Amino acid sequence: MTQLRRDPIVGRWVIVEDEKPWKPEDFGVEPHTYEPITHCPFCAGNERMTPPEITAVRPDKSAANTPGWQVRVVPNKFPALQIEGQLDRRGDGLYDRTNGIGAHEVIIETPEHAKDLPDLTYDQVRLALETYAQRSADLQKDKRFKYMMLFRNYGIAAGATLDHNHAQLIALPMIPKNVLEELSGSAAYFEHRERCIFCDILRQEQEEKERILDENDAFLAFCPYVSRFPFEIWILPKEHKDFFCKSSPQELDALAHILKDTLTRMRRTLNDPAYNFIIHTSPNDGQEHPGYHWHIEIMPRISRIAGLEWGTGLYVVPTPPEVAARYLKETKTT
Amino acid sequence: MTQLRRDPIVGRWVIVEDEKPWKPEDFGVEPHTYEPITHCPFCAGNERMTPPEITAVRPDKSAANTPGWQVRVVPNKFPALQIEGQLDRRGDGLYDRTNGIGAHEVIIETPEHAKDLPDLTYDQVRLALETYAQRSADLQKDKRFKYMMLFRNYGIAAGATLDHNHAQLIALPMIPKNVLEELSGSAAYFEHRERCIFCDILRQEQEEKERILDENDAFLAFCPYVSRFPFEIWILPKEHKDFFCKSSPQELDALAHILKDTLTRMRRTLNDPAYNFIIHTSPNDGQEHPGYHWHIEIMPRISRIAGLEWGTGLYVVPTPPEVAARYLKETKTT
Repeated sequence: MTQLRRDPIVGRWVIVEDEKPWKPEDFGVEPHTYEPITHCPFCAGNERMTPPEITAVRPDKSAANTPGWQVRVVPNKFPALQIEGQLDRRGDGLYDRTNGIGAHEVIIETPEHAKDLPDLTYDQVRLALETYAQRSADLQKDKRFKYMMLFRNYGIAAGATLDHNHAQLIALPMIPKNVLEELSGSAAYFEHRERCIFCDILRQEQEEKERILDENDAFLAFCPYVSRFPFEIWILPKEHKDFFCKSSPQELDALAHILKDTLTRMRRTLNDPAYNFIIHTSPNDGQEHPGYHWHIEIMPRISRIAGLEWGTGLYVVPTPPEVAARYLKETKTT
Repeated sequence: MTQLRRDPIVGRWVIVEDEKPWKPEDFGVEPHTYEPITHCPFCAGNERMTPPEITAVRPDKSAANTPGWQVRVVPNKFPALQIEGQLDRRGDGLYDRTNGIGAHEVIIETPEHAKDLPDLTYDQVRLALETYAQRSADLQKDKRFKYMMLFRNYGIAAGATLDHNHAQLIALPMIPKNVLEELSGSAAYFEHRERCIFCDILRQEQEEKERILDENDAFLAFCPYVSRFPFEIWILPKEHKDFFCKSSPQELDALAHILKDTLTRMRRTLNDPAYNFIIHTSPNDGQEHPGYHWHIEIMPRISRIAGLEWGTGLYVVPTPPEVAARYLKETKTT
């Protein structure tokens, strides 16, 4: 089991592996290729290589843990957090720690090896999004879990370790620091103005237009004014909504379109870059967060984070979002 | 000139290059080698390749911008911020921005190519530290600058772009987010307990001993309880002090010893890893920060930051600091 520790100065949490600690030689200094494997555990036919599936989309009604699925959800074989047990939070002198209770699931969006979302059909992307939403909603029933985060790491530079692409859904026993900051910033804005700051950002972007790269009835895709990464992209639902998992089927369909197109634009503009994709949604803390608005952040990993960024939290962005949006917008999606 | 922009939700600043924006093809996707150069601008004999020097340690009293120096300080040829002009802070709808006023200096600790601090003598490291302190103190006289950060990027994975190692000193027109968080966390602790949280951490580490890797009269080197990175190391002065640049000559000498030894331990334990090195010190805002305590953070860049970390601020640390400290402590420094 892992351990969670909380920094007493800035409130940051970390997950510490204390059962099987990595030795110095376990760190490949900057691995540049995926580890060669003879059988991919996420490919059709190799279902027995993963823990038993949690759910799967099986239009052919095939049996669990056999081929025939379109989207498959399994527990992470090397989970950062484990689902069994009760939270045991305690002090350790100045510090706080707790055991690593949570959930860590893998959502495999396609049985086809090395395909990424832009390679799938709109329908396949919609099925994946429906699965993300359904699994998030299901984990939300467990009140030990205060926050659910869905993310994808694509490419080695983005931290991916397998070249069969997939999403991860992690359920945390606390609201992590970055989410708390977004919540408190948006709550302060809401208290002051009785408006959602994300709705206001949406309006300003729609008026100024120069950072928008795509739009449909339900979603806006744009490069945020305060991007941390060059070519960073946010996708915001136009209707104010706190939880991703409450999206309607129509919204998920619209999202599938703009998401596939946006990732296609990014791939073509930046020569298939590594990227992280994160769904930011409201916490599962039983509170109302009227100033919060779920959204997706996509961060191409084409620049290095150096001492300046780590020390200050100040990012250097060599391509202004206005310029990045123009390149992305001009790139064809078909 | 660059532009500084402030995120209205979490208060993060970014530096945007708006004069010469990088195009998509300017991003080397994950460069793995330094760009080949025929003449290194930081080597002795090539002084004309840099902007004119700000200062240099020249025991032989040689002329400025000629060989003979031991440590040399020059303006960054590609500064993130520029020194001329007045701050012009303004709103942009919801957002805040300002022009990129600041200073960005390069401190070359040795004329010898590709040598890093562990390769220098204790005396050479002390000269470098004295130069860091002297330049910081000098920039502090300029009241436009609210924060000075000294950092080093070693190795490509840590964001270094030249293989002639060097430090950078940046002066910022505001206190950046990460520093504000440390200040407000330590101030809250101080208000409550009338004690410095860093002094309390020092005491707890000295009592528990298991995370300490080295110690002398003036400094403690340890792996922090809430490391973000495996094998992360902090060096803390034992005496409570707000500013690095107020260190006495004796303290800088003690720091030279523990710093060279610590970096030697890290290099040998982790097979010469890339790393970032950051001096965290008090801001130049004219305020008292009685709960703040300057320190050095060293972060080996041997693991990838992926979607989980970007989304939550929650770091996964595969080697607990207690285990990392043991490896580092057992590694010989000579």
